[in-house]
Amino acid sequence: MFAADSQRALDLIRQADRVLIITHISPDGDAIGSLLAMGHLVRQLGRPHVTLALEDGVPEKFDFLPGSADVLKATEGPFDLILIVDCSDDRRGGQVLHDNWRHGTPVINIDHHVTNTKFGTINLVRLDAAATTQIIYWLTEAWELQVDQQVAQYLLTGLVTDTLCFRAANVTPKVMADAAALMKAGADLSTITQQTVNRRSYDAIRYWGAMLDTVQLEDRVIWAVAPVSMRQHVGYRSNGDASLVTFLATAWEADMAVTFAETDAGLVEISLRAKPGLDVSAVALELGGGGHPAAAGATINGPLPEAVRRVITQVKRARHDQFEQHEEDQ
Amino acid sequence: MFAADSQRALDLIRQADRVLIITHISPDGDAIGSLLAMGHLVRQLGRPHVTLALEDGVPEKFDFLPGSADVLKATEGPFDLILIVDCSDDRRGGQVLHDNWRHGTPVINIDHHVTNTKFGTINLVRLDAAATTQIIYWLTEAWELQVDQQVAQYLLTGLVTDTLCFRAANVTPKVMADAAALMKAGADLSTITQQTVNRRSYDAIRYWGAMLDTVQLEDRVIWAVAPVSMRQHVGYRSNGDASLVTFLATAWEADMAVTFAETDAGLVEISLRAKPGLDVSAVALELGGGGHPAAAGATINGPLPEAVRRVITQVKRARHDQFEQHEEDQ
Repeated sequence: MFAADSQRALDLIRQADRVLIITHISPDGDAIGSLLAMGHLVRQLGRPHVTLALEDGVPEKFDFLPGSADVLKATEGPFDLILIVDCSDDRRGGQVLHDNWRHGTPVINIDHHVTNTKFGTINLVRLDAAATTQIIYWLTEAWELQVDQQVAQYLLTGLVTDTLCFRAANVTPKVMADAAALMKAGADLSTITQQTVNRRSYDAIRYWGAMLDTVQLEDRVIWAVAPVSMRQHVGYRSNGDASLVTFLATAWEADMAVTFAETDAGLVEISLRAKPGLDVSAVALELGGGGHPAAAGATINGPLPEAVRRVITQVKRARHDQFEQHEEDQ
Repeated sequence: MFAADSQRALDLIRQADRVLIITHISPDGDAIGSLLAMGHLVRQLGRPHVTLALEDGVPEKFDFLPGSADVLKATEGPFDLILIVDCSDDRRGGQVLHDNWRHGTPVINIDHHVTNTKFGTINLVRLDAAATTQIIYWLTEAWELQVDQQVAQYLLTGLVTDTLCFRAANVTPKVMADAAALMKAGADLSTITQQTVNRRSYDAIRYWGAMLDTVQLEDRVIWAVAPVSMRQHVGYRSNGDASLVTFLATAWEADMAVTFAETDAGLVEISLRAKPGLDVSAVALELGGGGHPAAAGATINGPLPEAVRRVITQVKRARHDQFEQHEEDQ
């Protein structure tokens, strides 16, 4: 199935004159790595007009990846083919997808999220991949394309960021072997980790300190809360939790971790993590978000204290129900 | 040289009747993984009397490794052979080495620290190894020993903890390929990361929050300070900085990171980290400690505020001098 679909995808790419490649809004390392890698590979396949676009642009932290400056924030078609990477549903394709997806435009959807809605004409969705870049690496083998130093760097960036540098539960021997192969092809793991998972601002570090002063643990759920005023106090300029949730999830006394970060607009960004065997993606879906069993998220309306009460109740219930289920399965 | 020495080491082991295997005091994952792996392998080589001992015992967090309960805290020889792993100098062998190292007892020293003093009869010191367990993995190849699931788990534990789960600058394609091979041999990366680098207590998380309230950044050196009272306040029961220094080192505005943790006895435990290309091991050596260029430590006398002033001055000077040197080299 994957073999046949990947061959069909290759045929579509080879026939296309104008190709648009996009990824999901609020992009992470796997989104950007996949976007840049597919751009490079589609050009390598001889396509004359290849456009990379993303409503949010490329976050500054990925400036170390060559070609990131060439990604547009908006574009006007028409395009013969849309290639969308690491994007679980068409809504997360943002304005660029909305503007360019005409009736009849074929869409190739390359992704590894369990919540993928298979919205593409061809869906190269592999749940056994630790990152979308790993699927793209497998496509280079299927399509017999050369992986040069630049593509190797893009692909390893996705593997590193989506596995939190090989810490996630989805890291198989194949992930390690693929990472070794990408390093042999010239990818620089040390630079990637320094620029992504090992890189924070001093303000983010101070923001962690302030958020950790709010940490709570109840019924094996751990959480922390960041009102807008906290970000302003420490001078942290981005939205979000600065990835604190991943740290909270290391508590051995907790099965699930949650952070609540108030945005300037008064919305509440929620990040969720679960220990292996448990699932927070259903809670995220209920809240209108998405993600993986082990890592998911959503953005909901405030006010913040009410959002915290409501979501913590839901998470505690999800944890409780999953343990009941687990007991029954025994 | 390594090939000849490893053959000599194998001959010594094969001739020994009573073998003592030890590692360094205040053991980390590489120390414990190396200790347990060598115990298993020396038994596999048919030695009838194999004793594993370590003054400090095995920290509770390594209980998930089979055989950790069989490590003694003290032992009485005589032994025909001492095998010491992951230990940069004989002082760090602690009381067990002191009690059992008689005149003429051959010592096999297996280690990867740049500060290793080559105190053994045979020194299997490889600076190109990311962990001592990686050297032991190479020895299993040289000695044509089978790596079963248990040994694979021990060896991968050392690789994971000494590379901070493949984040350190010393991670080569060979490290990734060896990790993939150990996983294929049955090592469970997910369990290892969950039990080591991804495992903290709720108290340690609250301790981080308190320490981060003291964080400072000057001249590209970042540091945090933990008096005994802070540990008592959050209920954190161990000594040390709960690995906060590794987190501080992720600040892109800093080149070196330091933590100061006061012990119950009024001593000050200092942990040091440097960005790739810089070296904190010389500072640690000056302070009577040791380590690697990127990660080192020492324990000095208090009082705490004076220790902070003195060491921060030294670290700033080291950073400054290394940048001067770097400029001259250009």
